[in-house]
Amino acid sequence: MSVYENLKKRGITIPAVTAPAAAFVPHVQTGNLIFISGHIAKKEGKPWVGQLGKELTTEQGKEAARGIAVDLIATLNSAVGDLDKISRIVKLMVLVNSAPTFTEQHLVANGASELLGELFGAAGPHTRSSFGVAQVPFGSCVEIDLVAEVKA
Amino acid sequence: MSVYENLKKRGITIPAVTAPAAAFVPHVQTGNLIFISGHIAKKEGKPWVGQLGKELTTEQGKEAARGIAVDLIATLNSAVGDLDKISRIVKLMVLVNSAPTFTEQHLVANGASELLGELFGAAGPHTRSSFGVAQVPFGSCVEIDLVAEVKA
Amino acid sequence: MSVYENLKKRGITIPAVTAPAAAFVPHVQTGNLIFISGHIAKKEGKPWVGQLGKELTTEQGKEAARGIAVDLIATLNSAVGDLDKISRIVKLMVLVNSAPTFTEQHLVANGASELLGELFGAAGPHTRSSFGVAQVPFGSCVEIDLVAEVKA
Repeated sequence: MSVYENLKKRGITIPAVTAPAAAFVPHVQTGNLIFISGHIAKKEGKPWVGQLGKELTTEQGKEAARGIAVDLIATLNSAVGDLDKISRIVKLMVLVNSAPTFTEQHLVANGASELLGELFGAAGPHTRSSFGVAQVPFGSCVEIDLVAEVKA
Repeated sequence: MSVYENLKKRGITIPAVTAPAAAFVPHVQTGNLIFISGHIAKKEGKPWVGQLGKELTTEQGKEAARGIAVDLIATLNSAVGDLDKISRIVKLMVLVNSAPTFTEQHLVANGASELLGELFGAAGPHTRSSFGVAQVPFGSCVEIDLVAEVKA
Repeated sequence: MSVYENLKKRGITIPAVTAPAAAFVPHVQTGNLIFISGHIAKKEGKPWVGQLGKELTTEQGKEAARGIAVDLIATLNSAVGDLDKISRIVKLMVLVNSAPTFTEQHLVANGASELLGELFGAAGPHTRSSFGVAQVPFGSCVEIDLVAEVKA
């Protein structure tokens, strides 16, 4: 089953790609690897502001991470032109805007990892690092970047 | 001298690989590069909880980082099947769970870097970024991920 | 126009490469990719100490990031021998030593991104993740690492 069918089955529409808010580009391909810039969590088009363990619960953080995964897919789609050309999601770095006492970054990150796993089938399982950061640009609650492998 | 002889000489036994606590995999290979997921510090099989500059000293952090390096080696071994096929440790990212005043992340990270340098000989010298994070999953004191190059 | 002409036009002299303060190396090449270790902000040869949103303004942070970009270029130059062999700046990770309320990490990071864009022409546009960290080694205000692609 193609990634597009998997998206459709879940009622997910690929959103428009947002232009970076600063002096960088959304994606760069080098050889078979494609690097995607850090994407921040958004709600109704604006940064989803808040800190885990303070203003936001783990469940909300997980939902935010899932939303970022959808935006990362939009960027991948615009980069490669065909999501079925992605042979592997290689690596996710999940930055969770965390109060000093919050220690469930791995559960927040699952919001992105689980969706990518469902959508990309055999290409979905990926390595990951998730951790708590002091802040994220615009005060957003989560930021994620990604490395993927493209078919030769 | 092989990596296995170097391990033996230091009395280090390769531990069992722990299954990830969330929706990701321990390693992914793409071309000659192998990406290893973030591994957290453990003590007696449980997360080694604490913050540098607060509950833990630099020396304890360094010991924790060394322990993670051993776990990363176990994951590399399970990924490649033969540690002597690793042609280069390419990159380490060392996340130190830090109180706002703690600034010796580089000394903590040396616990991992020095062991990898001793064990892998010419393949050991690597690039590195180490920094202080607000928290680590499970409250662990250190988290490290790694990129290595495998012989063609 | 070559990178060297662009540096000259801006009056930038490539500084000497500083030896790492710990057990790692400044750069590792694997295939066409070159990984550069995290470089910290310096002022008059010493760590530029301070936290954004506390001791330092966004403008100062941006200046610090620009200074790191110059040091990263020095390391790239020493790694490759000829900056015009860099076919692409692939990825920047920009760590901003941030007070809990500081949310302009992307503006700080622009100090490095804009300079690299100006100097490297078509090879300059890169992916990026910037975020706020709890601390940086030596208390430095910014740390940046980099991945670049070298011509085959």
